[in-house]
Amino acid sequence: MIKVAVVGASGYAGQELIRLLYQHPNVDVSTITSRSNINERYDNSYGNYLKISDLIFSENDMEKLSEEVDVIFLALPHGVASNVVTQEILNKVKVIDLGADFRIRDVDVYESWYTKHGSVPLLEKAVYGLCELNREEIVNTNIIANPGCYTTCSILSLAPLMDKSYVDKKSIVIDAKSGVTGAGRGLDLSTHYTEANESIKAYKVASHRHTPEIEEQLSKIAGEGIRLLFTPHLVPMNRGILATSYVRLKEEKSIDEIYSIYEEFYKDEYFVRLLPKGKNPETRWVKGSNYCDIGLNIDSRTNTIIIIGAIDNLVKGAAGQAVQNMNLLFGWEEKTGLDYVPLFPI
Amino acid sequence: MIKVAVVGASGYAGQELIRLLYQHPNVDVSTITSRSNINERYDNSYGNYLKISDLIFSENDMEKLSEEVDVIFLALPHGVASNVVTQEILNKVKVIDLGADFRIRDVDVYESWYTKHGSVPLLEKAVYGLCELNREEIVNTNIIANPGCYTTCSILSLAPLMDKSYVDKKSIVIDAKSGVTGAGRGLDLSTHYTEANESIKAYKVASHRHTPEIEEQLSKIAGEGIRLLFTPHLVPMNRGILATSYVRLKEEKSIDEIYSIYEEFYKDEYFVRLLPKGKNPETRWVKGSNYCDIGLNIDSRTNTIIIIGAIDNLVKGAAGQAVQNMNLLFGWEEKTGLDYVPLFPI
Amino acid sequence: MIKVAVVGASGYAGQELIRLLYQHPNVDVSTITSRSNINERYDNSYGNYLKISDLIFSENDMEKLSEEVDVIFLALPHGVASNVVTQEILNKVKVIDLGADFRIRDVDVYESWYTKHGSVPLLEKAVYGLCELNREEIVNTNIIANPGCYTTCSILSLAPLMDKSYVDKKSIVIDAKSGVTGAGRGLDLSTHYTEANESIKAYKVASHRHTPEIEEQLSKIAGEGIRLLFTPHLVPMNRGILATSYVRLKEEKSIDEIYSIYEEFYKDEYFVRLLPKGKNPETRWVKGSNYCDIGLNIDSRTNTIIIIGAIDNLVKGAAGQAVQNMNLLFGWEEKTGLDYVPLFPI
Amino acid sequence: MIKVAVVGASGYAGQELIRLLYQHPNVDVSTITSRSNINERYDNSYGNYLKISDLIFSENDMEKLSEEVDVIFLALPHGVASNVVTQEILNKVKVIDLGADFRIRDVDVYESWYTKHGSVPLLEKAVYGLCELNREEIVNTNIIANPGCYTTCSILSLAPLMDKSYVDKKSIVIDAKSGVTGAGRGLDLSTHYTEANESIKAYKVASHRHTPEIEEQLSKIAGEGIRLLFTPHLVPMNRGILATSYVRLKEEKSIDEIYSIYEEFYKDEYFVRLLPKGKNPETRWVKGSNYCDIGLNIDSRTNTIIIIGAIDNLVKGAAGQAVQNMNLLFGWEEKTGLDYVPLFPI
Repeated sequence: MIKVAVVGASGYAGQELIRLLYQHPNVDVSTITSRSNINERYDNSYGNYLKISDLIFSENDMEKLSEEVDVIFLALPHGVASNVVTQEILNKVKVIDLGADFRIRDVDVYESWYTKHGSVPLLEKAVYGLCELNREEIVNTNIIANPGCYTTCSILSLAPLMDKSYVDKKSIVIDAKSGVTGAGRGLDLSTHYTEANESIKAYKVASHRHTPEIEEQLSKIAGEGIRLLFTPHLVPMNRGILATSYVRLKEEKSIDEIYSIYEEFYKDEYFVRLLPKGKNPETRWVKGSNYCDIGLNIDSRTNTIIIIGAIDNLVKGAAGQAVQNMNLLFGWEEKTGLDYVPLFPI
Repeated sequence: MIKVAVVGASGYAGQELIRLLYQHPNVDVSTITSRSNINERYDNSYGNYLKISDLIFSENDMEKLSEEVDVIFLALPHGVASNVVTQEILNKVKVIDLGADFRIRDVDVYESWYTKHGSVPLLEKAVYGLCELNREEIVNTNIIANPGCYTTCSILSLAPLMDKSYVDKKSIVIDAKSGVTGAGRGLDLSTHYTEANESIKAYKVASHRHTPEIEEQLSKIAGEGIRLLFTPHLVPMNRGILATSYVRLKEEKSIDEIYSIYEEFYKDEYFVRLLPKGKNPETRWVKGSNYCDIGLNIDSRTNTIIIIGAIDNLVKGAAGQAVQNMNLLFGWEEKTGLDYVPLFPI
Repeated sequence: MIKVAVVGASGYAGQELIRLLYQHPNVDVSTITSRSNINERYDNSYGNYLKISDLIFSENDMEKLSEEVDVIFLALPHGVASNVVTQEILNKVKVIDLGADFRIRDVDVYESWYTKHGSVPLLEKAVYGLCELNREEIVNTNIIANPGCYTTCSILSLAPLMDKSYVDKKSIVIDAKSGVTGAGRGLDLSTHYTEANESIKAYKVASHRHTPEIEEQLSKIAGEGIRLLFTPHLVPMNRGILATSYVRLKEEKSIDEIYSIYEEFYKDEYFVRLLPKGKNPETRWVKGSNYCDIGLNIDSRTNTIIIIGAIDNLVKGAAGQAVQNMNLLFGWEEKTGLDYVPLFPI
Repeated sequence: MIKVAVVGASGYAGQELIRLLYQHPNVDVSTITSRSNINERYDNSYGNYLKISDLIFSENDMEKLSEEVDVIFLALPHGVASNVVTQEILNKVKVIDLGADFRIRDVDVYESWYTKHGSVPLLEKAVYGLCELNREEIVNTNIIANPGCYTTCSILSLAPLMDKSYVDKKSIVIDAKSGVTGAGRGLDLSTHYTEANESIKAYKVASHRHTPEIEEQLSKIAGEGIRLLFTPHLVPMNRGILATSYVRLKEEKSIDEIYSIYEEFYKDEYFVRLLPKGKNPETRWVKGSNYCDIGLNIDSRTNTIIIIGAIDNLVKGAAGQAVQNMNLLFGWEEKTGLDYVPLFPI
């Protein structure tokens, strides 16, 4: 049994992480922290933990935690993690950061989309924790940048095509749709029940911060700089992300050829489920699970591949992938504590 | 007061039409028909009409109706209308068809996406009833093909750009999202509450029948054949369509230039609301109304215009536009019986 | 055309009122006020008003308003109205208060459930504006206390039985369920989308402030003091209230006898719809309308009448009834500006 | 590892059961049956099982199953189970029936609410599988009648009070609210998405078949015949039941006294969570889990106890309790395969 701390446990990603860690056979959740609920019981914030957990929020003291636990999970607002993680801490403990601070290797790109970075030297030590792509690097680091929700779904949808010369890499459009948990637990008029319910909208059009994150990872595979168009939408449902990606082809390809590429690319991946030809993902089939479902289509009229990906944004898009990263770090089977049948209907 | 009949009044579009017609100052709904509920009270199918309407479903007899009423609205499954409308009927009565049978002028295109057409000679007499584009032709016909829901939203979103040479017309992608009323009142596992609720999916990927309808109208404006990619999605909400359209630019354009084009194009249109710069439509602001809201964005990184359109699929996307067409046909003010403030929150 | 002001136009009831007033043939909305959005456009708060209204929030100045308009509607938090309405104002203008301040005649009861009352002398001039019960008093007052949402539905459900000796008046239980608009537009974790969605709860059990309001009105009819049990629940939907009321019988009665009582009681009421025997109300059939639907049942096993009532909480439960009261005050037909077919599906 | 069969695996309860059994450490799901999908893959019906299960629906052959497996779970329409279970089968295999056929010991009561019973002699061997109440009998039977969803929640809410003389047992009203999964996967207009969404209704008022089931169990505890009033409501959400129960007191009692009774009654129960004083259950805190949450309130104005209970209807109200019964039958720890943290937000 290892000991873990969850720093920033009051949000939805933190809570989902604690749920998964409670059910993980090798883990003991010893500390949870929060800025706002210090000394309060966790089941006061999240009634689902009644009679299950006696955890109390404590103040965040990274020094102390680094002495006491084996892994620190950070679920903090963007810009905070890079100011609390230091090399000294990383010498003593592994850190899995669910925020954006260590996701983008190019500091200029990071700072143009986010804010000033608090620990640039650590950036090159951080590994982008999209397990299916970076497994080998993950096992050799002490600091993992756990990917964003939209990015996980988008990158897994597009990765297999990125090194193909017949793909028009300037043409990529990702039209993504997310449930409202993606917006977090903080109060805002846009996520007030009666405002978000029964309505759909696009938001942060042409300006969402997951754009450069997707681009950097896909560029790495492509071996060339990729610029793409990413549009997120808010959908009236609690969980789930569906990403519909459009990629123009420079030459005609059959659906079978495209399927072969994906089948080969993901043949050993437990958490990627390629749907049978003619079927496409729906978020209802992945909820509560770490799966990423992918469907493939070709529109021969416009010679375009349409890839549809679906994940549970709080699991594969956040907490589940964080656990998957932890499993890799400790040499456990990758699906340990994650091999749940998706719940349906929820 | 004119007399109208609604043929196919048991579905959602038919019901919404009857609601609007009941509140229309110049109209008397004298007959409703249905195949399955003959001799039953309408308020037995739709409890909202209790104490409001004593209408009884009767059998559809087009001959008889054409003698008795001034307009026949058809809300029938695709392929039926073209077999019940004849020139003789049109000599006696105006017909507004909410189905697809008369929407596509090119019979080969129609038959390749739908089924054999039942009255090809009438096709060239039918006018595509998208009022904002075809107002002048509408007033001079006796048979109007009321546009589809996705198509109304998509065409109004894209029309102002179609004759611009700097627009890459091969690049158009429309990613559309619809509420579940779009799927009608017929029972199907995919629209069973617990299957559709809390989930999003794409459907009929690269094969939805609204594709050729959008293409034909946009081609007419463009003066060249347009092929585009259209992907519909099912969203867990009752009403509303949001269409996110992507159009590549061949040269750089400012957002102000694009705004000017749309402002000019829609300057006299009561039912098109161009949102202030920086804002984008949300379906919650148009529900229960005949408005089409449009927002404009440019992604300068990929030199793409992103147009977002929103309508109430049952109003501007069906029944409301049918009433708007009727108003045009009878020379009434176009907004008669349609100038409602959208309901919120619903 | 009369001029009206809406004081407190930023909440849902205020907005619904403005929507109805905009569509009312005899009314001009000349002023809207708010504490927090002064000098802002109304369509900035409520996007449905884009291109429909140029209204700007102004500061609340009751003196000035009383000179300028014919009716002031107050949609204020409880406890505020009684401190801004004075006899001087009432000498110049009619006031329809959508809040609770003037609903309870017994000041001790009011102050034990709410707070200190700001204008006790006006209490006896105020008329409880449940139009179906108090029509005659309403036309003779200048200050109307518009009933609460739960109370409207509960009182209309129970009123016809209250003077019947065979009814056990100590046995009344009202189990009521409301959509989330009932909680208003103010941000709170309990109405955050992802907390309220997909869940139901009771709240303010045995302590909701609508209890004494229901009791006072029913006691008036009964001619004796009635104490009852009222439990509100929050349901994941935008609009609608369903109240399930249980009343024990002291002797056996047939369902026909009970129906006769309700039919007689409501025989001239346009906005009360008694459902056919064997049917019960559903909130979907009244949304967007001023109707109150009522269904009657007897459980012969326990000798209990079960009355089920349904309203749209924002219309008959707030803004619609306020308009109905205004119509009465000005001698207009009671349904003026209110005779809409309920929207479905919304 | 034992082998189990699920007969009637195509419905929601069957599916939830298979999900739980797949994750149960001691169980191998060897056979699933269905009348309508024979020879089809399970993941074709339920996409969540893609890559997880290769199960194929087979025909139901109870004789064969009784030779091959250790437990047969029946998830069949009411009236079917009593015609397929025989003493010969029970000699070879344990049966846990999720339907109603063996729940009511009094055959006259059963037949007056349901239909003719197919195997009356087995009725007295069947044990009502509400584990918290009947644990000792359960371990000694081969046929368990797994309780209904409403009944589980209602009985656990009321059981501790039933032997108290100061409780007015003629006064009990249960006002229950269920998510739509309770209505099953069969298509019906009332559970079509756009009909059930955004609306609440009561149904089967004074006539729901769970009434006699609740009465029989409570009567057993009370030592006298109990007749109560039960009203179910359909709520627009997928999962969850909330039961609000009203019980009049013959003498005054403090909330502390009532709490003591419940604390004592449930002190050893893992799956019953008594909420802290002043708090009441919400269905969001129990979803995906086998917990029953209970909150207690007293309305001193009417001297009534208000008990609020919440469960996940598919888990504690069906599949979870079936697994709990299996655990008891095999002498395993009662929470084996059931100790999940409730998922939130789902």
